[in-house]
Amino acid sequence: MTSVIESLSDWNRQRSSPAFQDKTLGLVPTMGNLHAGHRSLMERSRHQNDICVVSIFVNAPQFDQKEDLRSYPRTLGSDLETARQLEIDYVICPTHKALYPDHYTYRVTESRLSKVLCGKSRTGHFDGVLTVVLKLLMLIKPHRCYFGEKDYQQLQLIKGMLSAFFLDIELIACPTVRDQDGLALSSRNQKLKASDRVLAAEFPRILSMRLPVDVVKDSLQEAGFVVEYVEEEMGRRFGAVLLGDVRLIDNFLLADLGKVF
Amino acid sequence: MTSVIESLSDWNRQRSSPAFQDKTLGLVPTMGNLHAGHRSLMERSRHQNDICVVSIFVNAPQFDQKEDLRSYPRTLGSDLETARQLEIDYVICPTHKALYPDHYTYRVTESRLSKVLCGKSRTGHFDGVLTVVLKLLMLIKPHRCYFGEKDYQQLQLIKGMLSAFFLDIELIACPTVRDQDGLALSSRNQKLKASDRVLAAEFPRILSMRLPVDVVKDSLQEAGFVVEYVEEEMGRRFGAVLLGDVRLIDNFLLADLGKVF
Repeated sequence: MTSVIESLSDWNRQRSSPAFQDKTLGLVPTMGNLHAGHRSLMERSRHQNDICVVSIFVNAPQFDQKEDLRSYPRTLGSDLETARQLEIDYVICPTHKALYPDHYTYRVTESRLSKVLCGKSRTGHFDGVLTVVLKLLMLIKPHRCYFGEKDYQQLQLIKGMLSAFFLDIELIACPTVRDQDGLALSSRNQKLKASDRVLAAEFPRILSMRLPVDVVKDSLQEAGFVVEYVEEEMGRRFGAVLLGDVRLIDNFLLADLGKVF
Repeated sequence: MTSVIESLSDWNRQRSSPAFQDKTLGLVPTMGNLHAGHRSLMERSRHQNDICVVSIFVNAPQFDQKEDLRSYPRTLGSDLETARQLEIDYVICPTHKALYPDHYTYRVTESRLSKVLCGKSRTGHFDGVLTVVLKLLMLIKPHRCYFGEKDYQQLQLIKGMLSAFFLDIELIACPTVRDQDGLALSSRNQKLKASDRVLAAEFPRILSMRLPVDVVKDSLQEAGFVVEYVEEEMGRRFGAVLLGDVRLIDNFLLADLGKVF
Protein backbone atom coordinates (compact mmCIF):
# COMPACT_ATOMS: atom_id res chain seq x y z
CA MET A 1 0.00 0.00 0.00
CA THR A 2 1.29 3.42 -0.94
CA SER A 3 0.87 6.20 1.64
CA VAL A 4 0.69 9.73 0.32
CA ILE A 5 2.20 12.27 2.71
CA GLU A 6 1.93 16.01 2.31
CA SER A 7 2.80 17.19 5.80
CA LEU A 8 6.39 17.12 6.91
CA SER A 9 5.41 16.59 10.53
CA ASP A 10 3.39 13.52 9.48
CA TRP A 11 6.49 12.24 7.75
CA ASN A 12 8.75 12.98 10.71
CA ARG A 13 6.42 11.05 12.96
CA GLN A 14 6.52 8.07 10.60
CA ARG A 15 10.27 8.30 10.05
CA SER A 16 11.05 8.10 13.76
CA SER A 17 8.55 5.31 14.42
CA PRO A 18 9.72 1.79 15.33
CA ALA A 19 8.53 0.53 11.92
CA PHE A 20 11.53 2.27 10.33
CA GLN A 21 14.15 1.03 12.76
CA ASP A 22 16.88 -1.13 11.25
CA LYS A 23 15.20 -0.83 7.85
CA THR A 24 16.96 0.49 4.77
CA LEU A 25 15.25 3.38 3.04
CA GLY A 26 15.61 4.32 -0.63
CA LEU A 27 14.64 7.73 -1.97
CA VAL A 28 13.80 8.63 -5.56
CA PRO A 29 13.50 12.43 -5.68
CA THR A 30 11.33 13.56 -8.61
CA MET A 31 9.37 16.53 -9.92
CA GLY A 32 6.53 14.19 -10.79
CA ASN A 33 5.21 13.37 -14.27
CA LEU A 34 6.72 9.95 -13.76
CA HIS A 35 7.85 8.15 -16.92
CA ALA A 36 9.79 4.96 -17.63
CA GLY A 37 13.02 6.73 -16.62
CA HIS A 38 11.64 7.33 -13.15
CA ARG A 39 10.17 3.84 -13.10
CA SER A 40 13.63 2.36 -13.61
CA LEU A 41 14.87 4.29 -10.55
CA MET A 42 11.87 3.23 -8.51
CA GLU A 43 12.29 -0.42 -9.47
CA ARG A 44 15.96 -0.29 -8.55
CA SER A 45 15.09 1.27 -5.20
CA ARG A 46 12.33 -1.31 -4.61
CA HIS A 47 14.85 -4.05 -5.26
CA GLN A 48 17.53 -2.66 -2.91
CA ASN A 49 15.62 -1.30 0.11
CA ASP A 50 13.10 -2.29 2.75
CA ILE A 51 11.20 0.98 2.48
CA CYS A 52 10.81 2.99 -0.73
CA VAL A 53 10.03 6.69 -0.85
CA VAL A 54 9.37 8.82 -3.91
CA SER A 55 9.27 12.57 -3.43
CA ILE A 56 7.27 14.66 -5.87
CA PHE A 57 8.06 18.35 -5.72
CA VAL A 58 8.27 20.84 -8.57
CA ASN A 59 11.15 22.88 -7.21
CA ALA A 60 10.62 26.50 -8.29
CA PRO A 61 14.16 27.73 -7.41
CA GLN A 62 15.79 25.43 -9.95
CA PHE A 63 13.78 26.84 -12.86
CA ASP A 64 15.68 29.60 -14.59
CA GLN A 65 12.69 30.27 -16.89
CA LYS A 66 9.37 31.21 -15.34
CA GLU A 67 7.46 29.86 -18.33
CA ASP A 68 9.19 26.48 -17.98
CA LEU A 69 8.05 26.32 -14.35
CA ARG A 70 4.51 27.38 -15.23
CA SER A 71 4.15 24.82 -17.97
CA TYR A 72 5.95 21.96 -16.22
CA PRO A 73 3.60 18.95 -16.45
CA ARG A 74 1.83 18.17 -13.18
CA THR A 75 0.17 14.75 -13.21
CA LEU A 76 -0.20 13.72 -9.58
CA GLY A 77 -3.09 11.28 -10.19
CA SER A 78 -1.23 9.10 -12.64
CA ASP A 79 2.02 9.50 -10.67
CA LEU A 80 0.35 7.99 -7.62
CA GLU A 81 -0.97 5.18 -9.78
CA THR A 82 2.60 4.50 -10.97
CA ALA A 83 3.84 4.52 -7.38
CA ARG A 84 1.16 2.01 -6.38
CA GLN A 85 1.99 -0.28 -9.27
CA LEU A 86 5.65 -0.28 -8.28
CA GLU A 87 4.82 -0.88 -4.60
CA ILE A 88 6.36 2.36 -3.40
CA ASP A 89 5.67 2.72 0.32
CA TYR A 90 5.54 6.50 0.60
CA VAL A 91 4.96 9.31 -1.85
CA ILE A 92 5.94 12.60 -0.23
CA CYS A 93 4.51 15.75 -1.83
CA PRO A 94 5.61 18.70 0.30
CA THR A 95 4.49 22.26 -0.35
CA HIS A 96 6.92 24.99 -1.35
CA LYS A 97 6.18 26.78 1.88
CA ALA A 98 7.04 23.72 3.97
CA LEU A 99 10.35 23.08 2.16
CA TYR A 100 11.36 26.73 2.12
CA PRO A 101 10.60 28.14 5.58
CA ASP A 102 13.68 30.30 4.89
CA HIS A 103 12.32 31.66 1.57
CA TYR A 104 15.38 30.22 -0.16
CA THR A 105 17.76 32.53 1.70
CA TYR A 106 19.90 29.51 2.60
CA ARG A 107 21.43 27.80 -0.42
CA VAL A 108 23.96 25.17 -1.30
CA THR A 109 26.17 26.47 -4.08
CA GLU A 110 28.98 24.95 -6.10
CA SER A 111 31.56 26.98 -7.97
CA ARG A 112 33.20 24.68 -10.52
CA LEU A 113 31.20 21.89 -12.12
CA SER A 114 27.96 23.87 -11.76
CA LYS A 115 29.37 26.63 -13.97
CA VAL A 116 30.02 24.58 -17.12
CA LEU A 117 27.75 22.73 -19.58
CA CYS A 118 24.13 23.44 -18.56
CA GLY A 119 25.33 25.76 -15.81
CA LYS A 120 26.61 28.30 -18.33
CA SER A 121 23.14 29.20 -19.55
CA ARG A 122 20.93 28.07 -16.66
CA THR A 123 22.02 30.56 -14.01
CA GLY A 124 21.16 29.40 -10.52
CA HIS A 125 19.70 26.12 -11.73
CA PHE A 126 22.13 23.85 -9.92
CA ASP A 127 22.01 25.91 -6.71
CA GLY A 128 18.27 25.21 -6.71
CA VAL A 129 18.84 21.51 -7.34
CA LEU A 130 21.53 21.09 -4.68
CA THR A 131 19.55 23.06 -2.11
CA VAL A 132 16.34 21.09 -2.52
CA VAL A 133 18.17 17.76 -2.63
CA LEU A 134 19.95 18.54 0.64
CA LYS A 135 16.62 19.51 2.23
CA LEU A 136 14.97 16.30 1.01
CA LEU A 137 17.87 14.14 2.18
CA MET A 138 17.84 15.72 5.63
CA LEU A 139 14.08 15.31 5.92
CA ILE A 140 13.64 11.86 4.46
CA LYS A 141 16.92 10.41 5.80
CA PRO A 142 17.41 7.72 3.15
CA HIS A 143 20.25 5.23 3.06
CA ARG A 144 20.29 5.30 -0.73
CA CYS A 145 19.13 7.85 -3.27
CA TYR A 146 18.57 7.32 -6.97
CA PHE A 147 19.37 9.63 -9.87
CA GLY A 148 19.38 9.10 -13.63
CA GLU A 149 22.44 9.46 -15.84
CA LYS A 150 20.44 11.53 -18.30
CA ASP A 151 21.09 14.48 -15.98
CA TYR A 152 24.70 13.46 -15.60
CA GLN A 153 25.99 16.86 -14.53
CA GLN A 154 23.32 17.04 -11.83
CA LEU A 155 24.19 13.53 -10.70
CA GLN A 156 27.90 14.40 -10.37
CA LEU A 157 27.11 17.61 -8.52
CA ILE A 158 24.94 15.75 -6.04
CA LYS A 159 27.62 13.09 -5.61
CA GLY A 160 30.09 15.88 -4.88
CA MET A 161 27.72 17.44 -2.36
CA LEU A 162 27.32 14.13 -0.50
CA SER A 163 31.09 13.91 -0.25
CA ALA A 164 31.72 17.61 0.61
CA PHE A 165 29.22 17.47 3.47
CA PHE A 166 30.06 13.93 4.56
CA LEU A 167 26.54 12.64 4.05
CA ASP A 168 26.36 8.96 4.76
CA ILE A 169 24.03 8.25 1.82
CA GLU A 170 24.75 6.06 -1.16
CA LEU A 171 24.00 7.58 -4.54
CA ILE A 172 22.85 5.04 -7.11
CA ALA A 173 23.27 6.23 -10.69
CA CYS A 174 20.85 4.63 -13.15
CA PRO A 175 21.31 4.47 -16.94
CA THR A 176 19.31 6.78 -19.19
CA VAL A 177 16.05 5.25 -20.39
CA ARG A 178 15.22 5.97 -24.04
CA ASP A 179 12.14 5.89 -26.21
CA GLN A 180 12.08 3.35 -29.03
CA ASP A 181 13.52 5.94 -31.42
CA GLY A 182 16.40 6.72 -29.03
CA LEU A 183 15.22 10.00 -27.49
CA ALA A 184 16.08 10.10 -23.78
CA LEU A 185 12.90 10.19 -21.71
CA SER A 186 12.14 13.56 -20.17
CA SER A 187 9.01 15.23 -18.92
CA ARG A 188 9.71 18.07 -21.29
CA ASN A 189 9.46 15.80 -24.37
CA GLN A 190 5.69 16.02 -24.28
CA LYS A 191 5.92 19.75 -24.89
CA LEU A 192 7.33 19.03 -28.36
CA LYS A 193 5.08 19.52 -31.39
CA ALA A 194 4.45 16.25 -33.23
CA SER A 195 6.83 17.15 -36.06
CA ASP A 196 9.53 18.23 -33.60
CA ARG A 197 9.07 15.01 -31.68
CA VAL A 198 10.00 13.07 -34.81
CA LEU A 199 13.02 15.30 -35.41
CA ALA A 200 14.07 15.06 -31.72
CA ALA A 201 15.28 11.48 -32.21
CA GLU A 202 18.03 12.85 -34.46
CA PHE A 203 19.56 14.56 -31.41
CA PRO A 204 20.87 11.43 -29.62
CA ARG A 205 21.67 9.81 -32.96
CA ILE A 206 23.90 12.69 -34.12
CA LEU A 207 25.30 13.45 -30.64
CA SER A 208 26.52 9.88 -30.26
CA MET A 209 28.29 9.75 -33.63
CA ARG A 210 32.00 9.08 -33.55
CA LEU A 211 32.86 12.40 -35.18
CA PRO A 212 34.65 15.53 -33.96
CA VAL A 213 32.60 17.85 -31.75
CA ASP A 214 32.53 20.61 -34.37
CA VAL A 215 31.17 18.27 -37.02
CA VAL A 216 28.53 17.06 -34.58
CA LYS A 217 27.50 20.65 -33.86
CA ASP A 218 27.21 21.42 -37.57
CA SER A 219 25.22 18.26 -38.18
CA LEU A 220 22.81 19.11 -35.38
CA GLN A 221 22.35 22.62 -36.77
CA GLU A 222 21.78 21.29 -40.27
CA ALA A 223 19.21 18.86 -38.90
CA GLY A 224 17.26 21.81 -37.48
CA PHE A 225 18.39 22.10 -33.85
CA VAL A 226 19.64 25.26 -32.19
CA VAL A 227 22.81 24.01 -30.52
CA GLU A 228 23.52 25.31 -27.03
CA TYR A 229 26.62 23.22 -26.51
CA VAL A 230 28.35 20.01 -27.45
CA GLU A 231 31.29 19.38 -25.14
CA GLU A 232 33.40 16.54 -23.86
CA GLU A 233 34.08 16.31 -20.12
CA MET A 234 34.48 13.54 -17.53
CA GLY A 235 34.91 10.91 -20.23
CA ARG A 236 31.56 11.78 -21.78
CA ARG A 237 30.12 13.82 -24.60
CA PHE A 238 27.39 16.20 -23.47
CA GLY A 239 24.93 18.09 -25.62
CA ALA A 240 22.10 20.56 -25.18
CA VAL A 241 19.87 21.77 -28.02
CA LEU A 242 16.65 23.68 -28.50
CA LEU A 243 13.75 22.59 -30.66
CA GLY A 244 11.34 25.53 -30.63
CA ASP A 245 11.25 26.48 -26.97
CA VAL A 246 11.90 22.95 -25.72
CA ARG A 247 15.40 22.29 -24.45
CA LEU A 248 16.80 18.76 -24.79
CA ILE A 249 19.93 17.40 -23.13
CA ASP A 250 21.72 14.10 -23.43
CA ASN A 251 25.12 12.54 -22.88
CA PHE A 252 27.10 9.47 -23.89
CA LEU A 253 30.25 7.77 -22.72
CA LEU A 254 33.07 8.67 -25.10
CA ALA A 255 33.85 4.97 -25.24
CA ASP A 256 30.34 4.32 -26.60
CA LEU A 257 30.41 6.88 -29.42
CA GLY A 258 29.58 5.30 -32.76
CA LYS A 259 28.17 2.19 -31.08
CA VAL A 260 24.90 3.40 -29.58
CA PHE A 261 22.48 3.33 -32.49
CA MET B 1 39.65 10.47 29.75
CA THR B 2 39.81 12.76 26.76
CA SER B 3 40.52 11.14 23.39
CA VAL B 4 42.14 13.32 20.77
CA ILE B 5 41.07 12.45 17.25
CA GLU B 6 42.63 13.83 14.11
CA SER B 7 41.45 11.36 11.51
CA LEU B 8 37.86 11.50 10.33
CA SER B 9 37.78 7.80 9.65
CA ASP B 10 38.87 7.15 13.26
CA TRP B 11 35.99 9.33 14.37
CA ASN B 12 33.49 7.65 12.04
CA ARG B 13 34.48 4.28 13.45
CA GLN B 14 33.95 5.55 17.00
CA ARG B 15 30.70 7.34 16.16
CA SER B 16 29.07 4.21 14.74
CA SER B 17 30.31 1.96 17.55
CA PRO B 18 27.88 0.48 20.09
CA ALA B 19 29.31 2.78 22.79
CA PHE B 20 27.47 5.70 21.16
CA GLN B 21 24.13 4.00 20.74
CA ASP B 22 21.26 5.60 22.62
CA LYS B 23 23.65 8.18 24.04
CA THR B 24 23.17 11.92 23.65
CA LEU B 25 26.09 13.77 22.10
CA GLY B 26 26.89 17.45 22.59
CA LEU B 27 29.22 19.36 20.27
CA VAL B 28 31.09 22.59 21.03
CA PRO B 29 32.66 23.72 17.73
CA THR B 30 35.67 25.98 18.32
CA MET B 31 38.74 27.39 16.62
CA GLY B 32 40.77 26.54 19.71
CA ASN B 33 42.51 28.97 22.06
CA LEU B 34 39.88 27.99 24.58
CA HIS B 35 38.95 30.64 27.14
CA ALA B 36 36.28 30.97 29.82
CA GLY B 37 33.68 31.65 27.13
CA HIS B 38 34.37 28.28 25.57
CA ARG B 39 34.54 26.70 29.02
CA SER B 40 31.00 27.84 29.75
CA LEU B 41 29.81 26.09 26.57
CA MET B 42 31.76 22.97 27.43
CA GLU B 43 30.39 22.87 30.97
CA ARG B 44 26.85 23.29 29.67
CA SER B 45 27.41 20.48 27.19
CA ARG B 46 28.95 18.26 29.89
CA HIS B 47 25.88 18.85 32.01
CA GLN B 48 23.37 18.04 29.28
CA ASN B 49 24.88 15.12 27.35
CA ASP B 50 26.26 11.63 27.79
CA ILE B 51 29.13 12.23 25.39
CA CYS B 52 30.88 15.57 24.90
CA VAL B 53 32.84 16.54 21.82
CA VAL B 54 34.84 19.70 21.24
CA SER B 55 36.07 20.36 17.72
CA ILE B 56 39.15 22.51 17.23
CA PHE B 57 39.59 23.75 13.69
CA VAL B 58 40.87 27.11 12.51
CA ASN B 59 38.61 27.44 9.49
CA ALA B 60 40.51 29.32 6.78
CA PRO B 61 37.47 30.06 4.55
CA GLN B 62 35.80 32.18 7.22
CA PHE B 63 38.78 34.55 7.52
CA ASP B 64 38.33 37.55 5.28
CA GLN B 65 41.81 38.83 6.23
CA LYS B 66 44.83 36.63 5.56
CA GLU B 67 46.79 38.29 8.35
CA ASP B 68 44.02 37.52 10.85
CA LEU B 69 44.19 33.84 9.87
CA ARG B 70 47.98 33.78 10.05
CA SER B 71 48.09 35.36 13.49
CA TYR B 72 45.09 33.54 14.96
CA PRO B 73 46.31 32.06 18.28
CA ARG B 74 46.91 28.32 18.13
CA THR B 75 47.33 26.78 21.59
CA LEU B 76 46.52 23.10 21.19
CA GLY B 77 48.48 21.96 24.26
CA SER B 78 46.61 24.12 26.73
CA ASP B 79 43.33 23.54 24.87
CA LEU B 80 43.68 19.80 25.44
CA GLU B 81 44.45 20.47 29.09
CA THR B 82 41.22 22.51 29.34
CA ALA B 83 39.29 19.70 27.66
CA ARG B 84 40.70 17.18 30.13
CA GLN B 85 39.83 19.35 33.10
CA LEU B 86 36.24 19.67 31.89
CA GLU B 87 35.97 15.93 31.21
CA ILE B 88 35.37 16.31 27.49
CA ASP B 89 35.27 12.86 25.90
CA TYR B 90 36.59 13.70 22.46
CA VAL B 91 38.58 16.55 21.02
CA ILE B 92 38.41 16.41 17.23
CA CYS B 93 41.11 18.31 15.33
CA PRO B 94 40.60 17.64 11.64
CA THR B 95 42.94 18.92 8.93
CA HIS B 96 41.82 21.44 6.31
CA LYS B 97 42.38 18.82 3.64
CA ALA B 98 40.12 16.32 5.40
CA LEU B 99 37.28 18.83 5.90
CA TYR B 100 37.55 20.31 2.41
CA PRO B 101 37.92 17.37 0.01
CA ASP B 102 35.98 19.65 -2.36
CA HIS B 103 38.44 22.56 -2.01
CA TYR B 104 35.55 24.71 -0.75
CA THR B 105 33.70 24.52 -4.07
CA TYR B 106 30.53 23.52 -2.19
CA ARG B 107 29.25 26.19 0.16
CA VAL B 108 26.28 27.04 2.27
CA THR B 109 25.30 30.64 1.66
CA GLU B 110 22.68 32.93 3.16
CA SER B 111 21.41 36.05 1.47
CA ARG B 112 19.73 38.18 4.12
CA LEU B 113 21.01 38.13 7.70
CA SER B 114 24.55 37.34 6.52
CA LYS B 115 24.67 40.61 4.57
CA VAL B 116 24.10 43.02 7.47
CA LEU B 117 26.12 43.94 10.58
CA CYS B 118 29.46 42.04 10.40
CA GLY B 119 28.48 40.67 6.98
CA LYS B 120 28.74 44.10 5.38
CA SER B 121 32.49 44.33 5.84
CA ARG B 122 33.49 40.68 6.25
CA THR B 123 32.71 39.41 2.74
CA GLY B 124 32.32 35.64 2.64
CA HIS B 125 32.86 35.26 6.38
CA PHE B 126 29.47 33.76 7.16
CA ASP B 127 29.54 31.46 4.11
CA GLY B 128 32.73 30.05 5.59
CA VAL B 129 31.13 29.68 9.01
CA LEU B 130 27.93 28.05 7.76
CA THR B 131 29.80 25.69 5.47
CA VAL B 132 32.19 24.41 8.12
CA VAL B 133 29.44 24.11 10.73
CA LEU B 134 27.33 22.01 8.37
CA LYS B 135 30.33 19.79 7.66
CA LEU B 136 31.06 19.36 11.37
CA LEU B 137 27.43 18.63 12.20
CA MET B 138 27.18 16.00 9.47
CA LEU B 139 30.44 14.38 10.59
CA ILE B 140 30.04 14.51 14.32
CA LYS B 141 26.26 13.95 14.38
CA PRO B 142 25.52 15.67 17.69
CA HIS B 143 22.11 15.96 19.31
CA ARG B 144 22.96 19.39 20.69
CA CYS B 145 25.43 22.03 19.62
CA TYR B 146 26.61 25.01 21.65
CA PHE B 147 27.29 28.57 20.52
CA GLY B 148 27.95 31.77 22.42
CA GLU B 149 25.76 34.86 22.25
CA LYS B 150 28.83 37.03 21.79
CA ASP B 151 28.69 36.04 18.11
CA TYR B 152 24.95 36.58 18.05
CA GLN B 153 24.64 37.08 14.31
CA GLN B 154 26.55 33.84 13.73
CA LEU B 155 24.35 32.07 16.24
CA GLN B 156 21.16 33.24 14.50
CA LEU B 157 22.53 32.29 11.09
CA ILE B 158 23.34 28.79 12.30
CA LYS B 159 19.92 28.50 13.90
CA GLY B 160 18.39 29.50 10.56
CA MET B 161 20.51 26.91 8.74
CA LEU B 162 19.37 24.13 11.08
CA SER B 163 15.79 25.09 10.33
CA ALA B 164 16.23 25.62 6.55
CA PHE B 165 17.84 22.20 6.15
CA PHE B 166 15.65 20.45 8.71
CA LEU B 167 18.56 19.35 10.86
CA ASP B 168 17.36 17.56 13.93
CA ILE B 169 19.92 19.21 16.21
CA GLU B 170 19.20 21.45 19.17
CA LEU B 171 21.15 24.70 19.25
CA ILE B 172 21.97 25.86 22.77
CA ALA B 173 22.78 29.56 22.99
CA CYS B 174 25.01 30.49 25.91
CA PRO B 175 25.42 33.97 27.40
CA THR B 176 28.52 36.03 26.64
CA VAL B 177 31.27 35.59 29.22
CA ARG B 178 33.08 38.81 30.16
CA ASP B 179 36.37 39.70 31.76
CA GLN B 180 36.22 41.44 35.14
CA ASP B 181 36.27 44.84 33.41
CA GLY B 182 33.36 43.88 31.14
CA LEU B 183 35.17 43.09 27.88
CA ALA B 184 33.58 40.09 26.17
CA LEU B 185 36.06 37.22 26.01
CA SER B 186 37.53 36.60 22.59
CA SER B 187 40.68 34.95 21.32
CA ARG B 188 41.49 38.18 19.52
CA ASN B 189 41.68 40.16 22.80
CA GLN B 190 45.19 38.91 23.42
CA LYS B 191 46.33 40.66 20.27
CA LEU B 192 45.58 44.02 21.93
CA LYS B 193 48.49 46.13 23.15
CA ALA B 194 48.40 46.58 26.94
CA SER B 195 47.15 50.19 26.69
CA ASP B 196 44.48 49.19 24.15
CA ARG B 197 43.40 46.33 26.40
CA VAL B 198 42.61 48.88 29.13
CA LEU B 199 40.70 51.07 26.68
CA ALA B 200 38.83 48.05 25.25
CA ALA B 201 36.66 47.81 28.36
CA GLU B 202 35.09 51.12 27.36
CA PHE B 203 33.57 49.40 24.32
CA PRO B 204 30.93 47.29 26.13
CA ARG B 205 30.41 50.04 28.68
CA ILE B 206 29.57 52.67 26.05
CA LEU B 207 27.76 50.26 23.70
CA SER B 208 25.38 49.23 26.47
CA MET B 209 24.46 52.79 27.49
CA ARG B 210 20.83 53.72 27.21
CA LEU B 211 21.50 56.46 24.66
CA PRO B 212 20.62 56.89 20.98
CA VAL B 213 22.78 54.96 18.53
CA ASP B 214 24.35 58.12 17.09
CA VAL B 215 25.39 59.34 20.51
CA VAL B 216 26.88 55.93 21.25
CA LYS B 217 28.85 56.03 18.00
CA ASP B 218 30.20 59.48 18.79
CA SER B 219 31.12 58.43 22.32
CA LEU B 220 32.99 55.39 21.02
CA GLN B 221 34.87 57.55 18.54
CA GLU B 222 35.74 60.10 21.20
CA ALA B 223 36.99 57.29 23.44
CA GLY B 224 39.42 56.27 20.67
CA PHE B 225 37.67 53.48 18.78
CA VAL B 226 37.22 53.34 15.02
CA VAL B 227 33.52 52.51 14.78
CA GLU B 228 32.52 50.00 12.11
CA TYR B 229 28.86 49.94 13.07
CA VAL B 230 26.42 50.36 15.92
CA GLU B 231 23.01 49.06 14.92
CA GLU B 232 19.85 47.74 16.48
CA GLU B 233 18.32 44.55 15.09
CA MET B 234 16.44 41.54 16.48
CA GLY B 235 15.79 43.31 19.79
CA ARG B 236 19.49 43.85 20.36
CA ARG B 237 22.12 46.52 19.94
CA PHE B 238 25.17 45.34 18.01
CA GLY B 239 28.52 47.04 17.71
CA ALA B 240 31.84 46.46 15.96
CA VAL B 241 34.91 48.65 16.49
CA LEU B 242 38.59 48.59 15.70
CA LEU B 243 41.40 49.24 18.16
CA GLY B 244 44.55 49.34 16.07
CA ASP B 245 44.15 46.30 13.84
CA VAL B 246 42.10 44.34 16.38
CA ARG B 247 38.39 44.13 15.67
CA LEU B 248 36.02 43.83 18.65
CA ILE B 249 32.32 42.96 18.51
CA ASP B 250 29.66 42.83 21.18
CA ASN B 251 25.90 42.97 21.58
CA PHE B 252 23.30 43.60 24.27
CA LEU B 253 19.58 43.06 24.61
CA LEU B 254 17.82 46.40 24.07
CA ALA B 255 15.91 45.67 27.27
CA ASP B 256 19.22 45.54 29.17
CA LEU B 257 20.64 48.85 27.95
CA GLY B 258 21.62 51.10 30.85
CA LYS B 259 21.51 48.17 33.27
CA VAL B 260 24.58 46.15 32.36
CA PHE B 261 27.42 47.92 34.11
